[in-house]
Amino acid sequence: MSENPKIAVFGGGSWATAIVKMLCENLEQVGWYMRNQTSIDYIKENQHNPNYLSSAEFDVAKLHLSSDINELVEYGDILIFAIPSAFLKEELDKISVDFSSKIIFSAIKGIVPESGLIVGEHFHLNYKVPIENIGVITGPCHAEEVAMERLSYLTIASQDIKKARLMSKCLSSNYIKTKTSDDIIGTEYAAMLKNIYAIAAGIAHGLGYGDNFQSVLMSNSIREMKRYIKKVHKMKRNINNSAYLGDLLVTGYSVFSRNRMFGNMIGKGYTVKSAMMEMSMVAEGYYAAKSAYLINEKNNAKTPIIDAVYDILYQNKNPKQIFQKLTELLD
Amino acid sequence: MSENPKIAVFGGGSWATAIVKMLCENLEQVGWYMRNQTSIDYIKENQHNPNYLSSAEFDVAKLHLSSDINELVEYGDILIFAIPSAFLKEELDKISVDFSSKIIFSAIKGIVPESGLIVGEHFHLNYKVPIENIGVITGPCHAEEVAMERLSYLTIASQDIKKARLMSKCLSSNYIKTKTSDDIIGTEYAAMLKNIYAIAAGIAHGLGYGDNFQSVLMSNSIREMKRYIKKVHKMKRNINNSAYLGDLLVTGYSVFSRNRMFGNMIGKGYTVKSAMMEMSMVAEGYYAAKSAYLINEKNNAKTPIIDAVYDILYQNKNPKQIFQKLTELLD
Repeated sequence: MSENPKIAVFGGGSWATAIVKMLCENLEQVGWYMRNQTSIDYIKENQHNPNYLSSAEFDVAKLHLSSDINELVEYGDILIFAIPSAFLKEELDKISVDFSSKIIFSAIKGIVPESGLIVGEHFHLNYKVPIENIGVITGPCHAEEVAMERLSYLTIASQDIKKARLMSKCLSSNYIKTKTSDDIIGTEYAAMLKNIYAIAAGIAHGLGYGDNFQSVLMSNSIREMKRYIKKVHKMKRNINNSAYLGDLLVTGYSVFSRNRMFGNMIGKGYTVKSAMMEMSMVAEGYYAAKSAYLINEKNNAKTPIIDAVYDILYQNKNPKQIFQKLTELLD
Repeated sequence: MSENPKIAVFGGGSWATAIVKMLCENLEQVGWYMRNQTSIDYIKENQHNPNYLSSAEFDVAKLHLSSDINELVEYGDILIFAIPSAFLKEELDKISVDFSSKIIFSAIKGIVPESGLIVGEHFHLNYKVPIENIGVITGPCHAEEVAMERLSYLTIASQDIKKARLMSKCLSSNYIKTKTSDDIIGTEYAAMLKNIYAIAAGIAHGLGYGDNFQSVLMSNSIREMKRYIKKVHKMKRNINNSAYLGDLLVTGYSVFSRNRMFGNMIGKGYTVKSAMMEMSMVAEGYYAAKSAYLINEKNNAKTPIIDAVYDILYQNKNPKQIFQKLTELLD
């Protein structure tokens, strides 16, 4: 593994755009795949992404842009995936070259619906990528604040600490601080679960619950997350570290969170379908709620909040009634 | 101890007013001391407190109001103190009757400056109240939302669980849920410390840090709180319970928090003096920062956030520079 690796980012959304921006602070060249050729042409002409984080300007000379996924898979020593989990399989299916020897970082906050696996596991089990070649890039980090160059902290996880350190170096700058971790499973699950809790926070807000209740909901959410992750992958971790609690809070409390916004609409009485139509971005937590619920059917962690969100989103239950019951289960 | 105890609340501020409101949901009569006779006359005439939570209406027939503190100390079997800690001693000095056999509940979020003790300890050591007769009422709970009857959760702590349960019963209603705890020391310290972290959150906001940083600050705050309280009173506690983490979050994230508001002004460049003059309410965290810092001089917990707030408020250090240094110590 070279100290100056070739890195390619896959995805055209706000988080992918933010990661490319961070990498451009340190690297001479950054590979960037997005499926939409029109967006690529626009970036080349206007130095910014037309659809996401349009305030982030790029030195186009540094960007190796392509809408050919195979070209960029071949280009990169390290591949960073920042495609919404719901669309990951569709993109991976386009890859015809072998990439089992590449280093894969997941910057995806979700579970691959087709496999029911978190992204790291999906690459390991379905694409034979060795576990020590897999990493996770996680927040707490709203892409929008990266565009504004507001101080943010990332956690970079890999079982091979050298790879985590290398990625940390590539992402660090005067506005990005990084921390490494060896908990790839826990950080990925946390990143996925927090979106469900953000939807719950949004529903509560939409139903008219106040700040007092929100704080109780978040305090219960982090305890629930701890129980859930412990069942999935037991190891020593401090659930109050930024990658877990911080990530939960930034999503649960921030106005930037599309999951919270989605929940808020549900709480205010929108149907799931109409709330999804109103939003131009995907709320990852919608898919996560189903996957997390199904995974937990065998693990049996006590998860009243995930259960409530699942019942509302997938069982067509009444948000007001479900939350009234939920309030009895929180403390 | 009777099942229908006489309860007296001491204090005329928003939290005292909220507690009286909660008690009135369950009791036939509630004692209420406030030093300002004009406010008492106003409440009798207009059914609400003129200065705080004026939307909360009272059935005046239920209130035993007096500006004579001795009258209400004699009246109550249980005395609930909700006076800002900075003014507690001044009020207690007025008491000429013996109250060492009363049950004392503290609803004060701070340290008594004159003794450097949390309120429970202050009553125990200076007024010979047996430790099993002392309790704590803690949030997460903004008084303003109690006035609006928005669902809120309280934690009631006492080493004598029967007393905690009795108080829980007196405070519970369709908008107040309660939980009991035996950690009177830890819950009181948490209630005090969270105000310092809320000031830190306000300073960060005032300096222009964003949501990403706030979540890292809160994630570090709860870990710092855990270390701090462990040094003060080691026992098994889940720091992510509502009384600790929930209380931190409601204060650190809420627009109602006067501590956050105070910090915000400091971050924006107000001097401590001018920020205090601008605010009509006391920011408990200002006093707490000094007390907490001094107590920790012997305990030596690692407390970079408390230290930073102390340096800014009491050592006249530059907020921008102190926070720049602080960002290096967080993760």
